[in-house]
Amino acid sequence: MQKKLWQHIEKVRQTSPLVQNITNYVVMNNTANALLAAGALPIMAHAHPEIDEMATICQAIVLNIGTLDKYKVKSMLLAIKKAGELGKPTVLDPVGAGATSYRNETLSQLLEYRPTVIRGNASEILALAKQNTETTKGVDSTAQSNEALSAAKSLNREYGSVVCISGETDIVVNGEREIYLSNGHALMAKVTGMGCSASALIGAFIAVVEDKNEAVAAAMALMGVAGELAEKQSDGPGSLQMHLLDKLHTLTEAEFISTLKISEK
Amino acid sequence: MQKKLWQHIEKVRQTSPLVQNITNYVVMNNTANALLAAGALPIMAHAHPEIDEMATICQAIVLNIGTLDKYKVKSMLLAIKKAGELGKPTVLDPVGAGATSYRNETLSQLLEYRPTVIRGNASEILALAKQNTETTKGVDSTAQSNEALSAAKSLNREYGSVVCISGETDIVVNGEREIYLSNGHALMAKVTGMGCSASALIGAFIAVVEDKNEAVAAAMALMGVAGELAEKQSDGPGSLQMHLLDKLHTLTEAEFISTLKISEK
Amino acid sequence: MQKKLWQHIEKVRQTSPLVQNITNYVVMNNTANALLAAGALPIMAHAHPEIDEMATICQAIVLNIGTLDKYKVKSMLLAIKKAGELGKPTVLDPVGAGATSYRNETLSQLLEYRPTVIRGNASEILALAKQNTETTKGVDSTAQSNEALSAAKSLNREYGSVVCISGETDIVVNGEREIYLSNGHALMAKVTGMGCSASALIGAFIAVVEDKNEAVAAAMALMGVAGELAEKQSDGPGSLQMHLLDKLHTLTEAEFISTLKISEK
Repeated sequence: MQKKLWQHIEKVRQTSPLVQNITNYVVMNNTANALLAAGALPIMAHAHPEIDEMATICQAIVLNIGTLDKYKVKSMLLAIKKAGELGKPTVLDPVGAGATSYRNETLSQLLEYRPTVIRGNASEILALAKQNTETTKGVDSTAQSNEALSAAKSLNREYGSVVCISGETDIVVNGEREIYLSNGHALMAKVTGMGCSASALIGAFIAVVEDKNEAVAAAMALMGVAGELAEKQSDGPGSLQMHLLDKLHTLTEAEFISTLKISEK
Repeated sequence: MQKKLWQHIEKVRQTSPLVQNITNYVVMNNTANALLAAGALPIMAHAHPEIDEMATICQAIVLNIGTLDKYKVKSMLLAIKKAGELGKPTVLDPVGAGATSYRNETLSQLLEYRPTVIRGNASEILALAKQNTETTKGVDSTAQSNEALSAAKSLNREYGSVVCISGETDIVVNGEREIYLSNGHALMAKVTGMGCSASALIGAFIAVVEDKNEAVAAAMALMGVAGELAEKQSDGPGSLQMHLLDKLHTLTEAEFISTLKISEK
Repeated sequence: MQKKLWQHIEKVRQTSPLVQNITNYVVMNNTANALLAAGALPIMAHAHPEIDEMATICQAIVLNIGTLDKYKVKSMLLAIKKAGELGKPTVLDPVGAGATSYRNETLSQLLEYRPTVIRGNASEILALAKQNTETTKGVDSTAQSNEALSAAKSLNREYGSVVCISGETDIVVNGEREIYLSNGHALMAKVTGMGCSASALIGAFIAVVEDKNEAVAAAMALMGVAGELAEKQSDGPGSLQMHLLDKLHTLTEAEFISTLKISEK
């Protein structure tokens, strides 16, 4: 498995997939830089008249609902609809799911188009499932990844999406398959947009990797391993952000294989 | 006083206040990172349908008028109105006050809701007072902090806001009380959004510190001391930005106490 | 020539020109920081009611069509129109020209106001010329700078703009004059917004340098030399971004003269 994931990382570097992002204003710069560092090519465009053409040009679309507004919600709906028509894979990042009814309603609309992948933290996955599947259970805002597992399974059954719960341990859920990844470092939570960058990287990997479970696992593995190694050189969250971009670009197979912590069920 | 300010810094680290920001596109990333590095949790949201819910969830609201437009002006008015109803503290950052009549009019509307704190540079505070209080005096665009002192006092009398004039010396003005802080470094002016980050930090501190004068002073002290220490490790404005985020996160009591330059009148 | 370009760099540092930017959300922070590091003062504002006043205050205007939408297209049209009336120099950065018809139409409208300078990569310059001049020739998306030369000449003839094609070699085209600059490093392509920063710097230089060819060449020389020297200290794209900002600020005449690779035809 480790070997396969590394091959996927090399494939992104070699094929430079074009990833269209409709994402939040806070993380646009980081996200674009994370994609470039990993070898992909970012597009960031949300004007309604060009959504269809961008969907046609690109190889995957990432939708992130942070800093949403009416215009961007429509941009995202246009994009995910067109992606469906063209058979392009999509990633949904449900930033702040559960925080406001506006976010919940927006997410319900986007889910109808059955995103290829959903990636969020445990609270977001729980909120998303509570709102949008038959599962209803108490939601703890400090939910850990494994608590959100049944919520992820519900979402996967309902919408067919590969669901990734990110946290101290990342879990990739699809049908009977569960992949567990335990890299990264707590300091990453002190840098804004780490989850958003992970979602963008997933976009790059599902663009060029056939097996969607492995594509998601490879993206999360790259982010976690690069973050964990970057932290060792860092004096705080500012330098972590910088070293992470460096490491996404320079990570070697030996570093990756010796650092990766992965298991399957 | 030094000891008290340090306790406030520790309180922010321990209680992780949730700070809602309606701010400009240029600094969103830095501002979120500055809040995270100081131990707070940023929300950035400006969609009209979710303003009320975000105001309910958060513990303080920061309004920054850089890169404003019609939609965001309404977002800010909705937010400061709701904050008033809920008794949540607010910070107004009057970026570019005096530069255009649109900014002046927007600021006049926002001032009516009596923000808890106003933080701007000397020129901004002078422009704000000229437009909005009975004080009318010549405005020098290269105004120093102390020249803006009477303008700050007028604003404080008129709107009840604690007013912070930032510059080489920061002055916190409230009623008869004046606190002077003289940390920081000239190179900070070569990094965009340092003032915006200071305003965001004020949001974190007024969220959890009772005495609003001390809350503002603690935020400005943290920013100034961290900036001053970060500069010593820096080779220019790029590395200053990085080291500042690191230092906001790692600053120790000993470093803080030995570096802080503060006086009162 | 080298000596003259260095004098222009010093002039920007000494006179701190005020540069108004209507630019994309991805690069706003970097662009503002690049301008500050080079000694200029950035304004970023796009609200329709303040476009005229900002055009009056500033010394040059930079228009960048990345992440455009209906509101910002109108902002840019208002700004370039007002700049024409006031005789203020303008830079057009045709990000993603050719990618969508919406971009092409927007660019056609902006070109009518005859920007002082156009800066884009070879593909963008080719797409712009194909759409907007009598030149029609096959466009290769992996076009090199010199292939775009005749396209640049067409644009220059048609709109009177100094045209800069950026790439491994940057070419500044105006009438019979061609200036070739060969600094920079391939790793710069792995950092988002390097071209946008170059365009913003051109804004700073045309604000205060009479000879527009030299102004553009000086900006591109500064960016290329600073990037090349920054790369030597860097471990990847994250640290390159940081060192570049440092170097824009600290570059010395000796470093500049000994590193610059320039020729004319």
